[in-house]
Amino acid sequence: MPIARWRSGAWREERDQVAAEEPLQISLDGAPLSIVMRTPGNDLELALGLLWAERVISSRDDVVSIRISAEAAENDATVAIASDLVESNQIDVHLRSAAGRRPERSFLSSSACGVCGATTVESLALDFPTLEPGPTVDAAILPGLAERLREQQRIFESTGGLHAAGLFDTVGELQLLREDIGRHNAVDKVVGRAFLDGLLPLSDGVLAVSGRAGYEVVQKAVAAGIPILAAVGAPSSLAVATAERFGMTLVGFLRDDRFNVYTSPERIGR
Amino acid sequence: MPIARWRSGAWREERDQVAAEEPLQISLDGAPLSIVMRTPGNDLELALGLLWAERVISSRDDVVSIRISAEAAENDATVAIASDLVESNQIDVHLRSAAGRRPERSFLSSSACGVCGATTVESLALDFPTLEPGPTVDAAILPGLAERLREQQRIFESTGGLHAAGLFDTVGELQLLREDIGRHNAVDKVVGRAFLDGLLPLSDGVLAVSGRAGYEVVQKAVAAGIPILAAVGAPSSLAVATAERFGMTLVGFLRDDRFNVYTSPERIGR
Repeated sequence: MPIARWRSGAWREERDQVAAEEPLQISLDGAPLSIVMRTPGNDLELALGLLWAERVISSRDDVVSIRISAEAAENDATVAIASDLVESNQIDVHLRSAAGRRPERSFLSSSACGVCGATTVESLALDFPTLEPGPTVDAAILPGLAERLREQQRIFESTGGLHAAGLFDTVGELQLLREDIGRHNAVDKVVGRAFLDGLLPLSDGVLAVSGRAGYEVVQKAVAAGIPILAAVGAPSSLAVATAERFGMTLVGFLRDDRFNVYTSPERIGR
Repeated sequence: MPIARWRSGAWREERDQVAAEEPLQISLDGAPLSIVMRTPGNDLELALGLLWAERVISSRDDVVSIRISAEAAENDATVAIASDLVESNQIDVHLRSAAGRRPERSFLSSSACGVCGATTVESLALDFPTLEPGPTVDAAILPGLAERLREQQRIFESTGGLHAAGLFDTVGELQLLREDIGRHNAVDKVVGRAFLDGLLPLSDGVLAVSGRAGYEVVQKAVAAGIPILAAVGAPSSLAVATAERFGMTLVGFLRDDRFNVYTSPERIGR
């Protein structure tokens, strides 16, 4: 995909590859069990590994059949979903009737979640408004945000194990920082604080996150009305697609002297 | 906590800090909604941010009360769970009756999941057997596993966005590698492949993962019977506690010439 790459004050139009992220719907004995966000490939293994970890299956004899499919019964609520998915994004597992415990609920949904109610990028459009144009930030302030995140992360210094999400204003002043072992949780804490303070939507906010930008982080930022999301790590394909759909500016690989812009570069002042 | 640190062939007993990870149970109008794994702190914000992202709440008026509590009704299935949790690991949110959509299912459970059926480390003991003693691996082979992971990660080279999980034997030979945008998914794919090949439990396996070792990765490795887990990144407190409970050897910060051993160091030949 085409991106705008900024380095030490200079812009270049380049092409970049992003890691693929797509929803996989897993059905158990014909009933939808869960949606997981994953990189396509080895999906049968993924489904079986998940079911094994949950003790739903404990031997190969427990699995009568497993198939990759886009089919769904007419009277099934998944019809609308399945029609939006390519064939490889659905897996049906049929168990021997005497197999291990059946899950009582859809236990495999994502921690984010975003994935739960809406299983495709298209269906998300029903839930969130497109972001308004503006604001604009100066490109030169962006690399500093990653540095500010690190400075503030006192816990990270001693454990190396925490993610941070920092809310900045459009001149790069830190407004709020939260840390958590989960990247999504750090974002939720920032949004929850803004909620308590009556500041949502955060339509003048720049959110910087310490890790990668997956779909779920973008979804949470969209939900909070944040127009600019900058990640220290790489974005996923679905993160880019979601940012594009809602008109969010998505920045990745935010480092000392550089960053990449994947969507809506018009908010970054050249 | 005390750890064994290996560097360039020499061992040192040291103390290290790990990032805190604990389950937070969120209830909505008295009914259990979800468990999320998080770093304690700012839990009200976390709960509110999650509910906001799911469109359960859309204004402060929607929230009648939110409180941190260990209480549960006598006729509630969460009693046993709540009694195991410290007070700060439960949050009750009460909504105005006219608030936004109510979730139809427990959408916030983790992608792992491990967290779902069992919400405390203690209750996990019911589901998984403790690992058998052995095997032993030579300390000198461990740093090379991280390098092997990177070498094999051809997709990572171009996108910077994928995690890897590699299954090695006890002399450091790579048996199987899987990649995914989700660290858990990469582990599930490895375990699913082993399931298909009839190789579970992987009682002679060494699993190396490219990122951090959270609770869920440890839980999946325990479920697969893997005795040694080595992570390039940091472990969490709950990952360490879980590894300890099941007798797994947990290695973190696996780098060019060093690593830390958090639990069961007896499997690492000195």
